[in-house]
Amino acid sequence: MNNERYQQGLDKLTEYTLNANEETSTHHKIAEDLEDIAPDIGKYIIEFAYGDIYSREGLSNKQRALVTISSLVTQGREPQLELHINTGLTAGLTPTEIVESITHLIPYTGFPSVLNALQVAKKVFNVRGVTIEKTAQATG
Amino acid sequence: MNNERYQQGLDKLTEYTLNANEETSTHHKIAEDLEDIAPDIGKYIIEFAYGDIYSREGLSNKQRALVTISSLVTQGREPQLELHINTGLTAGLTPTEIVESITHLIPYTGFPSVLNALQVAKKVFNVRGVTIEKTAQATG
Amino acid sequence: MNNERYQQGLDKLTEYTLNANEETSTHHKIAEDLEDIAPDIGKYIIEFAYGDIYSREGLSNKQRALVTISSLVTQGREPQLELHINTGLTAGLTPTEIVESITHLIPYTGFPSVLNALQVAKKVFNVRGVTIEKTAQATG
Amino acid sequence: MNNERYQQGLDKLTEYTLNANEETSTHHKIAEDLEDIAPDIGKYIIEFAYGDIYSREGLSNKQRALVTISSLVTQGREPQLELHINTGLTAGLTPTEIVESITHLIPYTGFPSVLNALQVAKKVFNVRGVTIEKTAQATG
Amino acid sequence: MNNERYQQGLDKLTEYTLNANEETSTHHKIAEDLEDIAPDIGKYIIEFAYGDIYSREGLSNKQRALVTISSLVTQGREPQLELHINTGLTAGLTPTEIVESITHLIPYTGFPSVLNALQVAKKVFNVRGVTIEKTAQATG
Amino acid sequence: MNNERYQQGLDKLTEYTLNANEETSTHHKIAEDLEDIAPDIGKYIIEFAYGDIYSREGLSNKQRALVTISSLVTQGREPQLELHINTGLTAGLTPTEIVESITHLIPYTGFPSVLNALQVAKKVFNVRGVTIEKTAQATG
Repeated sequence: MNNERYQQGLDKLTEYTLNANEETSTHHKIAEDLEDIAPDIGKYIIEFAYGDIYSREGLSNKQRALVTISSLVTQGREPQLELHINTGLTAGLTPTEIVESITHLIPYTGFPSVLNALQVAKKVFNVRGVTIEKTAQATG
Repeated sequence: MNNERYQQGLDKLTEYTLNANEETSTHHKIAEDLEDIAPDIGKYIIEFAYGDIYSREGLSNKQRALVTISSLVTQGREPQLELHINTGLTAGLTPTEIVESITHLIPYTGFPSVLNALQVAKKVFNVRGVTIEKTAQATG
Repeated sequence: MNNERYQQGLDKLTEYTLNANEETSTHHKIAEDLEDIAPDIGKYIIEFAYGDIYSREGLSNKQRALVTISSLVTQGREPQLELHINTGLTAGLTPTEIVESITHLIPYTGFPSVLNALQVAKKVFNVRGVTIEKTAQATG
Repeated sequence: MNNERYQQGLDKLTEYTLNANEETSTHHKIAEDLEDIAPDIGKYIIEFAYGDIYSREGLSNKQRALVTISSLVTQGREPQLELHINTGLTAGLTPTEIVESITHLIPYTGFPSVLNALQVAKKVFNVRGVTIEKTAQATG
Repeated sequence: MNNERYQQGLDKLTEYTLNANEETSTHHKIAEDLEDIAPDIGKYIIEFAYGDIYSREGLSNKQRALVTISSLVTQGREPQLELHINTGLTAGLTPTEIVESITHLIPYTGFPSVLNALQVAKKVFNVRGVTIEKTAQATG
Repeated sequence: MNNERYQQGLDKLTEYTLNANEETSTHHKIAEDLEDIAPDIGKYIIEFAYGDIYSREGLSNKQRALVTISSLVTQGREPQLELHINTGLTAGLTPTEIVESITHLIPYTGFPSVLNALQVAKKVFNVRGVTIEKTAQATG
């Protein structure tokens, strides 16, 4: 039954949004915004993306967040990147892991995607009030 | 000095290729193939990609492999994907983690990229003689 | 003679813009904006895009608008998407056909492109004062 | 219940493959090929892509095929393009509509994507033994 | 009149293909291959791409070839890249200029696009029997 | 030693920014902006992009700027395009060469990328107070 997948998706989404009201509301805001022209979109995100895919075994929430962020940096999809850096932090990625993942992509996507993504990360970190652990960056 | 970065890159690359002669030779084969028209390319891959970027702190080798694979699936760059599924296995990713990472991308890239990438993964697994752990897939 | 192709293109463009002064002016505004640095661009759009390509037989105006919108959603080119959702409406696509075409792309491009495109569609529908036919969406 | 979505997807897929054993087997072959490493992929294609998305109201099968082909030409995903030119023909698109849709994309994607896609179309038409209606092309 | 643009395009194309029968036939082969399904494509390439665009003032043939190659490397469109490395050589680009242009893109597209493009260049150089000037590469 | 590559990169960057305080500060502003979350990024841009790649022989600064702009137009990366149209002007490209390079890409990327890029160029030309040489455009 769809409701079971919907409930599973909603539970999973909560794991990515529990401690941060802001981006929970972002997910709900996306669905609400499109309620009048595409009411099923929110349902597909919960049921299919979170209920079917994110709920699979074999990867941790942190790993899923890392995969998602890597794809969005590569695509240059910045509105979604902002959302998923937020959910990544909630799922347990540290700011350093996020910055390092983006930096790691320089040899695979070039500098422009990486520079744009780092500015999105900086913005999210500022809003969340989190900071980079200094030692991990001391590679100069 | 450049030699220091080159040595650091070579050491790091070895961590991704230690147990698998095949893909080590793939990295060297790329450099050799281009020796006569672009002799510096191999040097940049070792010094910059592996010496500067892969050698940074803050992410494990497994995490770097996950980020690389996610980007290459998203770009649809299959020759490189084959190489990096190989290095990912050597770096410690399980076949299940690789398959799940690719599957996780369906909501972010659609099915075509994912189907093509899974066929590359299947080919690499066959060559390496590795198999998927069945339980992790038993989500049906 | 060029003038013949130009006239044919202008006639064809009018079919996509007849009932909506706004997006006609958008096409003219693009050409005007670039008049001082690239005066031939407007000519190529009229002569080649509308005169040669859009004027071909074998597809209806509605079908051409559908193909154009599908490509622009896939590319994530939102300024142009806004223009072509406008011309698509003028060419006879219903709001539901436009929303369904965008939604149909989820399996081929993933959610991010689709969500961004639906927000563009919502904005255009609001400006044009058109609404989705409720019954077609009642699939929940 | 999932089985209901699966059945709905299978029924819908049949509408795109009824008269052409070849591409039905292609869809099944994709699922079978990945059975040992990603057994759920086939299920998601049937349940989500065909059961949820293709089964929506508001667009005809022909329109859905047109949208799919336009996206795949734009992405340059040729293995999938071959499959969906096949399903498009079965869904009722004429060879001319397919060629015109691809040609229509020149102003939006440039010539390279279009030339590659037309060669895929030619190959599919040859295998299916279908030909272009000459009059529709007589625009020279 | 179209014939004038066609003639201008044909003359311009000859500047890119004069000394190399091989890639001239490649351009004609593309048009011939598609003659039965899309007879106007060859005309658009000659009239619009070569007659309108390549025939513009303000850039040399060598510069146009450089721009074309840079775009095709970035897009990862290798069949077309092969053709345009050929026409670039005929237009006067040296093998070193071609290799350096591709290498220059590492910071903008990452290594994968560049490695794939260099292998295409190597293949074309072999077929044409041209070699890299050694001194220009002696940057190690 | 890294300092040597850094100095070489800084010297090379100066060749692209000497006469225009504005975009020099842009390069420094990017590094400064990311200082607190990714302090090595600025170093990699100077050492690798400008020190290793831009400092290679075989292409003039103008040619490198042309290759960079062509790639960024193709990728649709407009923030970076603005920066590199600026550095291209400083490196010696004329406004006409820049506009013609962008226009030349219509057959390879379609109109949308080109139209967006021309608006970026127009904005940069306005800020720099440069204008198109009229005769070069008189192709109508």
